[in-house]
Amino acid sequence: MKSVGIVAEYNPFHNGHLYHVQAAKRLSQSDVTIAVMSGNFLQRGEPALVSKWSRTKMALQSGVDIVIELPYAFAVQKAEVFAHGAIFLLNAMKCSGICFGSESGDIQQFIHTLSFMNDKKTEYDKHIRMFIKQGISYPSALALAYQELGPDSRSVDLSTPNNILGYHYVYAAAEINPRLNFYTIQRKSAGYHDESFSDATIASATSIRKSLNAHGNLSEIQAYIPHETLANLHQYSSDFAQFHIWEDYWPYLQYRLLSMNKEELREIYEVEEGLENRLIKAAHSADNFHSFMKAIKTKRYTWTRLQRLCVHILTNTRKTTIHALDKSPQYARLLGMSSIGREYLNQIKKELPIPLVSKLSAYENNMLMLDIRAADVYAHGLAEPYRRKLLAFEYRQPPIFNNA
Amino acid sequence: MKSVGIVAEYNPFHNGHLYHVQAAKRLSQSDVTIAVMSGNFLQRGEPALVSKWSRTKMALQSGVDIVIELPYAFAVQKAEVFAHGAIFLLNAMKCSGICFGSESGDIQQFIHTLSFMNDKKTEYDKHIRMFIKQGISYPSALALAYQELGPDSRSVDLSTPNNILGYHYVYAAAEINPRLNFYTIQRKSAGYHDESFSDATIASATSIRKSLNAHGNLSEIQAYIPHETLANLHQYSSDFAQFHIWEDYWPYLQYRLLSMNKEELREIYEVEEGLENRLIKAAHSADNFHSFMKAIKTKRYTWTRLQRLCVHILTNTRKTTIHALDKSPQYARLLGMSSIGREYLNQIKKELPIPLVSKLSAYENNMLMLDIRAADVYAHGLAEPYRRKLLAFEYRQPPIFNNA
Repeated sequence: MKSVGIVAEYNPFHNGHLYHVQAAKRLSQSDVTIAVMSGNFLQRGEPALVSKWSRTKMALQSGVDIVIELPYAFAVQKAEVFAHGAIFLLNAMKCSGICFGSESGDIQQFIHTLSFMNDKKTEYDKHIRMFIKQGISYPSALALAYQELGPDSRSVDLSTPNNILGYHYVYAAAEINPRLNFYTIQRKSAGYHDESFSDATIASATSIRKSLNAHGNLSEIQAYIPHETLANLHQYSSDFAQFHIWEDYWPYLQYRLLSMNKEELREIYEVEEGLENRLIKAAHSADNFHSFMKAIKTKRYTWTRLQRLCVHILTNTRKTTIHALDKSPQYARLLGMSSIGREYLNQIKKELPIPLVSKLSAYENNMLMLDIRAADVYAHGLAEPYRRKLLAFEYRQPPIFNNA
Repeated sequence: MKSVGIVAEYNPFHNGHLYHVQAAKRLSQSDVTIAVMSGNFLQRGEPALVSKWSRTKMALQSGVDIVIELPYAFAVQKAEVFAHGAIFLLNAMKCSGICFGSESGDIQQFIHTLSFMNDKKTEYDKHIRMFIKQGISYPSALALAYQELGPDSRSVDLSTPNNILGYHYVYAAAEINPRLNFYTIQRKSAGYHDESFSDATIASATSIRKSLNAHGNLSEIQAYIPHETLANLHQYSSDFAQFHIWEDYWPYLQYRLLSMNKEELREIYEVEEGLENRLIKAAHSADNFHSFMKAIKTKRYTWTRLQRLCVHILTNTRKTTIHALDKSPQYARLLGMSSIGREYLNQIKKELPIPLVSKLSAYENNMLMLDIRAADVYAHGLAEPYRRKLLAFEYRQPPIFNNA
C-alpha cells in the first residue's frame, strides 16, 4: 500500500482541506492518506477551536486514513521546527510522498529555491543577522534576506505563508529523506489569512473561526465545511458547551504571570532578554488577552511569535525542558484511523523507527509529557463540569476508529 | 501615649473582637490599640472573606487605632512562626503590653507553663519526635508530648486552639522582649471552631463565615457583628459582587498542579517527601477544592496544614524563597490608622527599628514581594471587571485613615 502525507491543523476541517486530501491521493496515486496534525495548541500560538479528538473525527470522516499528533514541542514553534517535526513523522510513517497547499502551486519552484538557497547560505545568514540587528522580526528578516539574494523567476515567492511552510517542508526532507516525493496544489480562492468569505464553498480556517467567534452561529459557515465538520462542531458544542478561545485562558495566563518572578519567567521557553518586564507589567494592567497582546507587541516580535510565547507561559514550558529533548519526534501518537488506515498500520508497524503510541499509560517520555500537560491546560478553557470531562479524555480516549 | 497590641485576622470583625479590643484597652490602661492582622490569606490556609482593606476598615471603625499587616511569610504558617512574626511586630511598634483571648482566661497559667516547659525542653522534644515518627500530625504530637510531661494544675490546657496560640505569644515574647506585659481575656461563649450559633451576640468567625457561605445572607449574622462590619460587608459585596472562598481559587490551584512536574512541586514550601504524587493525582480527579482536600488528607497532616500548603502552591511560594528570608518581619506595613493612631505613629516613628511602609512603590523587599503576590493571587478569586479593580488596590490604596 502506498501512502501520502499531509501536514495540517484542521482548525476546523473545511472544504479546502477536503479538496487537499482528495488531490493528495490523486496526484500521488496513493491508497492511504496520513495527516500529521497539531494537538490542542497550534502553530500560531492559539488553542484549537475544538479538541484534537473532535478534529481527528472530522478528518477521518472526510477521507483522511491516519491521524498522528504533531507533538507540542514541534507544533507550537516557528516554521522550521514545525516543518521538521511534521516531515520527520510522515517519513517515519513510511509515506512515499507529501502533498501541501501553497500560493505558488508549482513544486519546481520550491525545488529550485532549495538549491538556490543552498548555494547562497552564507550570504543569506549574513543578511538575516543584519536585519535582526535592525530590530526587524525574524520572519520579516528571512523574507528581506531572501529578497537581497535576488531570487530569479524560477524561485518561489517566500512572502506568503503557505509558500514559506512548503519551502520548509522541502528543506526538512532534504535532511531527513531526500527520496520523499513532493506535490503541491495551489490554494483555491481563499488566502491563508483571509478574514472574510470571498468564494462560495472555499474559505480559510481563519475566516471560518472569525465568523464562529463573532456570531457563534454554525449556519453561517456551513457552506464552507463538509457536513461531517458541521456535525462534529455541533457535537462539541453540545458536549462541552463552548469552543476554545484565547480569552478563556487569559485568567490563567494572568494568574501565572502575577505569581512568578522575573527569574522564573526568564526560564520559560522563548522569553528573551527584556521581554519579562513588559510581560509582567502588561499582566498587571490588562483585563483581557487582546489588550495584553497589544500591550506587549513591538516591531521586533510578530503577533504569532508572542502568542506562542504566551502558550509556553500558560503551559509552563521551560527552556531547559525543550533544550533537553531530541531534535526529532520520538514517537508517533495515533489519534485515529480508518479501516484502510488500520490495514496500512498493520503492514508497516514492524518497520516503524519510533514507537506508535495508542495508549498513554503504556509509554513514558519527556516529550510526550508536554503533550499531556498541553491537554490538561487546554481543558481549563472550559468551566466545570466540562473541564473534568475533557481532562479524562487524554488518558482514556483510545485512538478513534472510523469504520465508514 | 501607651499602646496595647492585639493579634488578629478579623475574618470578619465580630462582637467578640469588639469585646476584645475594649478589654485590651481597659486591662492594659492604654490610649492606643494596635492590631497586627493577617493579609489576604490566613493561618488556617484560607483566603480571607474580604480583602485586608475592607477588614482594616471594620477594625478601625470598631475602635482599633492602628492596623499593621502580618506579612504572608508569617501569616500562612504554623502557630510558632505566626506568633513570632506577630509579637515581633507589636514589640517593634512599641506596645507595652499584648492582650489575647484564650479558653483559659488566666495569664498566670501561661507564664507558669512557659517556665515548666523551659525546664523540660529536652524531654518534651524527645516526646514530640516519638509521636511524629508514629505518623501523628504535628499539632497532635505537641499536645500529646505536653501530656506526657504531666503538667500540673497551674498549667494551661494546651489542647484548645486559643490557648495554644496564647502560649506561643508568651513564648515568642520571652525571646523578643521579656518586658512585654501580657493580658488574656476568656473567650465568651463561642468556641474558636464552633460552626453554629449558641449565644445571642457572640459567635465565632467560623460560624459567621459558614452562615455567610451557606446562605449568602447578611441578615442572619447581623446580631453577631458590629454594624460597621455589616456595612463593610455590604459595601464589599456591592463593589466586588462576591466574597472570597477557596472554591473560587480551585481552578487556579488545579491548573497550577497540572502544569508543573513533580520536581517543581517539591520546590514549593511545605511540600514534603511523598506528598507530590498524591497532590498531582488528586488534582486530576477532583472537580472542586473540597473533594481535592478529602483526597489528599491523611492522619499525618492536619486539614489546616494541607490548606496552608495549597495556599503556598497557589501563590507559588518556594522553599528557597522562605528559607532565604529573615526570621523576623523586616518592615511594618501600615494598613490603616485612626486620628489617635496617627498621633501615636508620629510620636514613635523615630524609634521604630524597622521601616514603616505606607507606600509600596517606596520600598523593595523580598518579604514584601510575597505580600504583593498574595494580593495579586487573591484578586483571582474574582471575575472581571472586579479582579482588575481589586488588583489596582494593592499598589494604589494608601493606608486607610479613619477620622471618626
